[in-house]
Amino acid sequence: MSDRPTLPGNMPNAFVAGRGNLSPEDQSLVARRQAAMGPAYRLFYETPVHLVRGDGVWLYDAQGEAYLDTYNNVASVGHCHPRVVEAMARQAAVFASHTRYLHEGILAYSERLLRYFPPELSHVMFTCTGSEANDLALRITEAHTGGTGIIVTENAYHGVTHAIAALSPSLGQGVALGKAVRVVPAPDPLRLEGDLGQAFAAHVQAAVDDLIAAGIKPAALIVDTIFSSDGVLADPKGFLAPAVAAIRKAGGLFIADEVQPGFGRTGEAMWGFERHGLVPDIVTLGKPMGNGYPVAAVVMRPDLVAEFGTRARYFNTFGGNAVAAATANAVLDVIEDEGLMDNARIVGSYLREGLDDLAARHESLGPIRSAGLFVGAEIVAGGDPLAADAAYAANVVNRLRDARVLISATGPRANVLKIRPPLVFSTENADLFLDRLDKALVR
Amino acid sequence: MSDRPTLPGNMPNAFVAGRGNLSPEDQSLVARRQAAMGPAYRLFYETPVHLVRGDGVWLYDAQGEAYLDTYNNVASVGHCHPRVVEAMARQAAVFASHTRYLHEGILAYSERLLRYFPPELSHVMFTCTGSEANDLALRITEAHTGGTGIIVTENAYHGVTHAIAALSPSLGQGVALGKAVRVVPAPDPLRLEGDLGQAFAAHVQAAVDDLIAAGIKPAALIVDTIFSSDGVLADPKGFLAPAVAAIRKAGGLFIADEVQPGFGRTGEAMWGFERHGLVPDIVTLGKPMGNGYPVAAVVMRPDLVAEFGTRARYFNTFGGNAVAAATANAVLDVIEDEGLMDNARIVGSYLREGLDDLAARHESLGPIRSAGLFVGAEIVAGGDPLAADAAYAANVVNRLRDARVLISATGPRANVLKIRPPLVFSTENADLFLDRLDKALVR
Repeated sequence: MSDRPTLPGNMPNAFVAGRGNLSPEDQSLVARRQAAMGPAYRLFYETPVHLVRGDGVWLYDAQGEAYLDTYNNVASVGHCHPRVVEAMARQAAVFASHTRYLHEGILAYSERLLRYFPPELSHVMFTCTGSEANDLALRITEAHTGGTGIIVTENAYHGVTHAIAALSPSLGQGVALGKAVRVVPAPDPLRLEGDLGQAFAAHVQAAVDDLIAAGIKPAALIVDTIFSSDGVLADPKGFLAPAVAAIRKAGGLFIADEVQPGFGRTGEAMWGFERHGLVPDIVTLGKPMGNGYPVAAVVMRPDLVAEFGTRARYFNTFGGNAVAAATANAVLDVIEDEGLMDNARIVGSYLREGLDDLAARHESLGPIRSAGLFVGAEIVAGGDPLAADAAYAANVVNRLRDARVLISATGPRANVLKIRPPLVFSTENADLFLDRLDKALVR
Repeated sequence: MSDRPTLPGNMPNAFVAGRGNLSPEDQSLVARRQAAMGPAYRLFYETPVHLVRGDGVWLYDAQGEAYLDTYNNVASVGHCHPRVVEAMARQAAVFASHTRYLHEGILAYSERLLRYFPPELSHVMFTCTGSEANDLALRITEAHTGGTGIIVTENAYHGVTHAIAALSPSLGQGVALGKAVRVVPAPDPLRLEGDLGQAFAAHVQAAVDDLIAAGIKPAALIVDTIFSSDGVLADPKGFLAPAVAAIRKAGGLFIADEVQPGFGRTGEAMWGFERHGLVPDIVTLGKPMGNGYPVAAVVMRPDLVAEFGTRARYFNTFGGNAVAAATANAVLDVIEDEGLMDNARIVGSYLREGLDDLAARHESLGPIRSAGLFVGAEIVAGGDPLAADAAYAANVVNRLRDARVLISATGPRANVLKIRPPLVFSTENADLFLDRLDKALVR
């Protein structure tokens, strides 16, 4: 069994031209896409989905068929939420300019956002994408620590800028890692022996030692606090603390990449790092922040940016513009007024029970790992939890797609079902999903 | 006379805390901003402007006072253009998701956008910001050429990602340039001797030679084709061609950064590079593309991305989403239906004549350089075109602000008025601007 996808730049669940069962119309769209947008883009699924409409947890294709969305964490408060759309449109019609003028909107949003964080983290800066947020966090980290050594997990994904792609091993062997980047095994309870936190910290310490031996000053450990691309690694709570202590002892910072777990998805807390009982030095935000509007941010301790901010002004033309602030503010309104963090916890727990039941009946499924509505489900061969079965995971994903449930796979072995629906997912939606998955798991 | 601002990270026209004449309300906004957003942000003007509304070429402050906007090139078809806002809101209410599903909108926009380019440039990829577009162009360039050497002009600005800030000397000495970056004098007709094109090309050739001597393979020459941060350098047409020939002879690419001059602003053509009678290898787009919605792009020859696209998939969560496509498409509708490129040429020419008249009467003003509605006007001492007067330029900028005309300064000596209004600027707007400038230039 190969532990790694063999194709460089391989991606779980990518469409391969010439396969699938496309209508002539969709074949034409694929051809136009190749011609205009070139070879670097990937579509999902053996038979890509041609979508035209979204509403809550539902997406609709060109024939009007409804798909249950159990995957998209950007439209986190539901596709095309009218309150968010209205806030965006209203602000865009009145004033849309940037942060070099005074404007109440961005200040009110900044202050509101910071109230969701521990008081130590009292500065926020705005970008348009999670990639830009991690990139800015890296610049601030290097300016503050004077180091360049970065530690990431084995299948980490932190973004696509030049600097961040170089510390995102999940992009595949076609994207070279930076010389100052060290990769550690993910805190995978199936594969690390002994106490998970201590075992992970030992790997981080070894990476610190390796950096120092190479004459590179350690700057930061950066992790997605739900370890999404490493296969969704949530438990036991608190396992991150020893690794964070190790990087801090070496003079480095801990950067919590909350682009995926943030904004209530994990159910019990607004941010994934809270699960681990620690306060990061820097936190990065993105995807669900504007429910699809391009807005992202870096939240940090003020002392970290004092040096950077004095020497190097930062201006992101669209980052933190008045429309971004109004849209992101409406997202917080919806999360609060619709109780979506509670919903993530309650429905996440219901979904988890259902998945555990399915895992007891299907030897291909399990173990299941989850926090709220962020779920990873191993697809394995012969009931062996270590026998990752990427081919069967792809089969399940595509059978679900054909049964009009959207999902995908992740993890270093491409065998983990990633279940990550909009937070308005209901128990009825969960029942439908579990029913379709039950059928898709029949070999 | 110092040729350079002395403060590291200095920025023309930046607010300095403690100066200016702020109302108690605005002082409170400044304090809240410092507390929440930290020290890396800069406001414009000695007395920052607190804006609440935009409409066409007008911006309104909290007291309802109207400011003529002669500076913002993002809201290029006019602040809060109803047709653009409506297209954005309509799409956001229906479907807003990403490029891993098939969607007609992004394909139709891609095909339409590419029709504005020479046929050689037939692929487009989408990002959210001009910084990301230049960053992606750099990744593609390195993958294709196998080189890392980049040549930029002395006060170039190409963006704020880690990799792009390292090739943007205008960010100041507080941001280190990359080891493979070489800086050449800008093609400034006041300061380069002899034929401008040949003189600039000689500097580019010297930078190529220096890279090779250092064992660094030249990868690209990247320039903003209107040289905005170098002081707006437009003429003589065609001066870029010899420099482009030099980088190509060395195996490198020519990247045209059209983030500022693009989308019709130069009046005679959609893109700044067309002024120089050449076809770039890669073109980057940004700011005005969505009239404020965060959308940007890289346009390129297909052979350049063949290698990159095979080995390294590219996915930008928000880049090229359905709302970005609909919004950018509406911007093209407005540019075409309202004849804004023609307007930029006609009003730009009218404005230029008025500025030349003012320059004949005020020894502080001139030379003027322009293409369409992208204008640079030197502020000098004693009528000497080489005696850059940054202090007086700042004075003029702030007097204009107090006279309710928004403008700023640029250039390596911070003495060039940058006049860059929304493209809906009328001759009446130009008359008002010229009248206010006339008064502001009285010493």
